[in-house]
Amino acid sequence: MYLIGIDVGGMSIKGGAVTTDGKIVYKTAIPTTEKYTEQYSISEDIRKVIDAVLEGANITLSEVKGIGIGQPGSIDSKNGIIRYSNNISLERVPVVAELKRYFDVPVFINNDANCAALGEYVFGAGKGYNDIIFVTLGTGVGTGFIIDGKLFEGRECAGTEGGHMQIDISPEAQPCSCGRKGCWEAYASATALMRQTKAVMDKNPDSLMHKFAKEEGKVSGKTAFLAAKAGDKAGQSVVDTYIGYITSGLVNLVNIFCPDAILIGGGISYEKEYLTNPIQKAINEDRFGAKFNPKVEIKTASLKNDAGILGAAALAL
Amino acid sequence: MYLIGIDVGGMSIKGGAVTTDGKIVYKTAIPTTEKYTEQYSISEDIRKVIDAVLEGANITLSEVKGIGIGQPGSIDSKNGIIRYSNNISLERVPVVAELKRYFDVPVFINNDANCAALGEYVFGAGKGYNDIIFVTLGTGVGTGFIIDGKLFEGRECAGTEGGHMQIDISPEAQPCSCGRKGCWEAYASATALMRQTKAVMDKNPDSLMHKFAKEEGKVSGKTAFLAAKAGDKAGQSVVDTYIGYITSGLVNLVNIFCPDAILIGGGISYEKEYLTNPIQKAINEDRFGAKFNPKVEIKTASLKNDAGILGAAALAL
Repeated sequence: MYLIGIDVGGMSIKGGAVTTDGKIVYKTAIPTTEKYTEQYSISEDIRKVIDAVLEGANITLSEVKGIGIGQPGSIDSKNGIIRYSNNISLERVPVVAELKRYFDVPVFINNDANCAALGEYVFGAGKGYNDIIFVTLGTGVGTGFIIDGKLFEGRECAGTEGGHMQIDISPEAQPCSCGRKGCWEAYASATALMRQTKAVMDKNPDSLMHKFAKEEGKVSGKTAFLAAKAGDKAGQSVVDTYIGYITSGLVNLVNIFCPDAILIGGGISYEKEYLTNPIQKAINEDRFGAKFNPKVEIKTASLKNDAGILGAAALAL
Repeated sequence: MYLIGIDVGGMSIKGGAVTTDGKIVYKTAIPTTEKYTEQYSISEDIRKVIDAVLEGANITLSEVKGIGIGQPGSIDSKNGIIRYSNNISLERVPVVAELKRYFDVPVFINNDANCAALGEYVFGAGKGYNDIIFVTLGTGVGTGFIIDGKLFEGRECAGTEGGHMQIDISPEAQPCSCGRKGCWEAYASATALMRQTKAVMDKNPDSLMHKFAKEEGKVSGKTAFLAAKAGDKAGQSVVDTYIGYITSGLVNLVNIFCPDAILIGGGISYEKEYLTNPIQKAINEDRFGAKFNPKVEIKTASLKNDAGILGAAALAL
């Protein structure tokens, strides 16, 4: 039997046929249509991807245990409805009911960060733990929680927005895309890191960051890390400050949940130990009751580019 | 059948005999001995209170369903051990095992804020909800979480320290008793309110706050509220800023848990609607996805002075 995992993103809808032990046997993608309407629902494009996966993997629906969809935004997973997504502009779309018309198998939908947490728990670096927090450092900061072996979604699936935890109430707090100021996302996302990098570059014209940015053709989430690794002081200061921001939010979550492990995913996680080692040290020291409470491991998430498809597929297990 | 609830505090150990529907039939207290040692454990004083309750309520142990203990600090409730408490200085005390020597009934221990959350859920303002967050605004800020009808404690009971969520990463952040800077507790506790009140009083010698502080003989958590209610601008500014601090942390918790209700307890909660109304408004507006997500009610906790005994008793239900 196979699972089908669908990963809805701002640019494309990816889909894959996945074995029940987490191997992708076939994957494909189509671009996300810019405007979805009541007449042309996003479900139509998801349907196309599912059909393409069935055909490409050369399997029939009778071999499919279930379909899982990972979708950015606020998802009513119980009723299979996208409450809203501001990334791809969507409001109250009953995706599961729409897809059930075509596919007579169980269909599930959940928030993409929740899916990624579940995927890491079932197939990835979270295997063997009971309680994990998954944090993705990308365009934004997404969080997903596994508590006692189960995906935690908050009441009516309306929780787990850890990225929108306010960590700066000072008057200088950064504005966040959610409308509030000082959210963790506005400090710890890749987007925030690029802003922080540019600000320090402007003040340090001799920094190696200028060289690395030139080579890459832009300032990216890597620029400061590359410079820091090459011994550049200004680059190191950007990295240290950024890691401090990540840690601030993580300590908050550790103090509330005390998970077995925190898994860090998203583009920035490719820095691996360069990121996880200082975070591990800071968590060990800064958490509440550090001396007495059980250890929390900081690890890099392992599913990388396939996290979206595998996490969505895990919904159908 | 009766429950015995024990409420351990910095000044005294209170105890009560409680009916299974939450009525206290007898209560008493003894002062907390300053230094507990391995030779003279806090369990000895708890034992004395239990004996006094049995005698005062005129009941025998055969009529007792169980004993519950609420204790400040980090508690390993599964193994019945106080991991540590900095309030009353204690480290690794196996209270449940020590008491079981004397009392052949089920004995439970948990963190005091967890007990208060459970007490409100079972006997108080949290009745009828599935998911509640209890927040106590006192010397510190304590939090307790009921998720899906069960007390949530974090892995190995080492979580739910919401008061030690960092909400200010700016260089001017207030130091917290836990060693970090910028914790919610350092802004939203009664202690913090008094500090904020004094600072504004110093700059506003004509404020009515001086009059109310004089009448009470000190600056308290009430001073700014009294002045604000009497139309004093400086007092109102203290109250508004303070409510903003409370709200900042509450929105963070709502974004993660989306509870049915938040119950506010502790000394400051006696301000009732004067506190809950502006907080309700701010939560409705500031939470993530406010337009689409289910409502979270803000209420005053109802167990007041008996919260400690009743919450501890609820452990034994």
